[in-house]
Amino acid sequence: MKATVVTIGDEILIGQIVDTNSASLSRHLNGIGITIHEKISTGDTKEAIIDTLNRAMSSSDVVITTGGLGPTKDDITKHTLAEMFGSKLVYNEAEGEHVRRLLERRGVAFTDLNRGQAMLPECCTVLRNAHGTAPGMWFDTAKGGVVISLPGVPFEMEHLMEDEVLPRLKERFELSTIVHRTLITHGIAESILAERISAWEDALPDYLHLAYLPAPNIVRLRLSAYDTIKEQAESDIAAAFAELERIIPDNIVGMEGSTIEQRVHEILTERKETLSIAESCTGGSIAAKFTAMAGASAYLLAGVVSYANSAKCDILGVNPEFIERDGAVSESVARAMAEGVRRITGADYAIATTGIAGPSGGSEHKPVGTVWMAVATPEKTIAVLRNCGTDRSQIISRASAYAIELLYNELKKL
Amino acid sequence: MKATVVTIGDEILIGQIVDTNSASLSRHLNGIGITIHEKISTGDTKEAIIDTLNRAMSSSDVVITTGGLGPTKDDITKHTLAEMFGSKLVYNEAEGEHVRRLLERRGVAFTDLNRGQAMLPECCTVLRNAHGTAPGMWFDTAKGGVVISLPGVPFEMEHLMEDEVLPRLKERFELSTIVHRTLITHGIAESILAERISAWEDALPDYLHLAYLPAPNIVRLRLSAYDTIKEQAESDIAAAFAELERIIPDNIVGMEGSTIEQRVHEILTERKETLSIAESCTGGSIAAKFTAMAGASAYLLAGVVSYANSAKCDILGVNPEFIERDGAVSESVARAMAEGVRRITGADYAIATTGIAGPSGGSEHKPVGTVWMAVATPEKTIAVLRNCGTDRSQIISRASAYAIELLYNELKKL
Repeated sequence: MKATVVTIGDEILIGQIVDTNSASLSRHLNGIGITIHEKISTGDTKEAIIDTLNRAMSSSDVVITTGGLGPTKDDITKHTLAEMFGSKLVYNEAEGEHVRRLLERRGVAFTDLNRGQAMLPECCTVLRNAHGTAPGMWFDTAKGGVVISLPGVPFEMEHLMEDEVLPRLKERFELSTIVHRTLITHGIAESILAERISAWEDALPDYLHLAYLPAPNIVRLRLSAYDTIKEQAESDIAAAFAELERIIPDNIVGMEGSTIEQRVHEILTERKETLSIAESCTGGSIAAKFTAMAGASAYLLAGVVSYANSAKCDILGVNPEFIERDGAVSESVARAMAEGVRRITGADYAIATTGIAGPSGGSEHKPVGTVWMAVATPEKTIAVLRNCGTDRSQIISRASAYAIELLYNELKKL
Repeated sequence: MKATVVTIGDEILIGQIVDTNSASLSRHLNGIGITIHEKISTGDTKEAIIDTLNRAMSSSDVVITTGGLGPTKDDITKHTLAEMFGSKLVYNEAEGEHVRRLLERRGVAFTDLNRGQAMLPECCTVLRNAHGTAPGMWFDTAKGGVVISLPGVPFEMEHLMEDEVLPRLKERFELSTIVHRTLITHGIAESILAERISAWEDALPDYLHLAYLPAPNIVRLRLSAYDTIKEQAESDIAAAFAELERIIPDNIVGMEGSTIEQRVHEILTERKETLSIAESCTGGSIAAKFTAMAGASAYLLAGVVSYANSAKCDILGVNPEFIERDGAVSESVARAMAEGVRRITGADYAIATTGIAGPSGGSEHKPVGTVWMAVATPEKTIAVLRNCGTDRSQIISRASAYAIELLYNELKKL
């Protein structure tokens, strides 16, 4: 079963936004055994949309489009689909009511343009967008395929996909299984790695496809199986990766998938233990990573973004002499921040960061990217110095990741 | 002049990575007056690559591919291009030497696989990759177009584009000019905005194309002109946006590039005033937005993520009776949080949020999405209740945007 993903919008073609929808759609479709034949991004013109959809329908059973469903004149996906499927737009009372109630809750007036959003092609199955004003649409094609149109707002698309599209696709088609598993290696260049594991690669079962995905200091090795039996593929892949761990034991990071903050979230929730966070250079990013996960309130007591030195002392109780003597970016301050936030909130664990995110503020001894991070536990406080790169956003994101990893490594020991 | 961007790699088709290369390529090409006809992502098979490239060459003068140039067996773009252009691979001494020196500097041995990377189609112009081991390739097609193959590693692609590809394209083709300018509005829903400015929209010169790009609490309005004269288009767009500022004076953030948090950042930096933040449901996102900007330390004193009620009372000094009487999500608690963080840090301004991010914790009177936000200034404290949607990430991002806007509106008055 093949699908083509079509993202519609000039903002994608001119590079004003990075398309994240198509990656998410691909994962969802692969998850139910549908292979992506290709992805196409096209502009907001009728001719381009029709041409692209005709091509997509001729090569795929399932075509999913995103974008172009807004209330304004530049949004033409719906009208184009109605024309393609020879259907007229009719007012859908239920959708109109839904949009009216949604806007009412936000304190926004229901206008003629919103009314227009409930004008839908007569021939389609309407997919209720619980989180937005643009419904999704499901069209059955003459050849037995489907064309599904979803809004471009990522989280609206996401909910529609999970709640409306995937269940219908599973019901409608006889689907197979696709399995992807990725092992992350570090500290070995791609070409050297490929030579080192070439015998292993040659001995892989024919139906497993290997891909190398290099990134700075890591190479991800993905094994994929299409049209397969899930248990068989998973067991063969597990055996292959176990063999690989014997060949390059020092270069394995682990499997791709669950993030380290998710693992921490799970461990703390399960153990009913609590966490507080004191951030300087990471500026709230660590707290935001945890609070993005539903259920974080079960263990996260507080975060303190102690950006100014006075905040480090006044709120967290850091001894001003440490700052005077060692500077704000120092082991003593990182430790005092972690211990301080743990003490004032009564948490079991605490994470702290203090560093130089740049672009200014660096010195010869403490260049931009220097970050001290600490973890306080009921038993002890540990502190680590890491260089986190040269670019501000890179430094913030690496420092956040390293600091969470520091806590994770401690939790694993207990 | 039209281009098609082709990204090659199963990792894109299965959604393992988000393709950022094509957005960057689009901006580069638009910048020299080349329109993107479409973008296609295809898999790592010879048939898929040949089919896609043939289609792209038939619709565009310029075809740029990224990906599939690595040293391992799953990388087949180069061999496929050599076959398509009927050319054999020959060893390129200069490229081989370059790769050898590059790896030597990284302390990596030069292997047969790396030697293979210097085997290049005889008919192409080799584009030196100063930052990586996979050279770019430029092929002239029989019909007078070009096919350019670049590596998929983003910063290698980026450097090759700037240093090798753009200068050659400008020399080779007679190019026109494309102008895009984007104005950001806030505090007005897309459908309401569209009605308010419909006369303005209708009066735009025919050659200017308007697009609406909605995001939480902001709508970006983009005007684009293709095949145009730069000065003329820029002056017409400036006049149109100036007119718009007269129509919706209270809803203009500024030109793209400037977000509301950037405007707050600029105002506070210029006025040498300070800010602190107390967050509950937004969980550090507001602090993270400010600290992502270089120079935030000039005005941001502290953020407190008071997730647990005890943290609201112990750190921020919120009266526990307020929580008892009104609940943690209430006007009294939002006000007390803002005033508390302002007082304990000595900041000029403070922002506070308290709400229900869900998915659980809602009730009939306070459903998921209910957020109280407050701003404390030297003169007063204001508090506003907003419904921020139904999805956790949406609620966090909207509540953050609304709360920053609340401060921005106060700062504008002063």
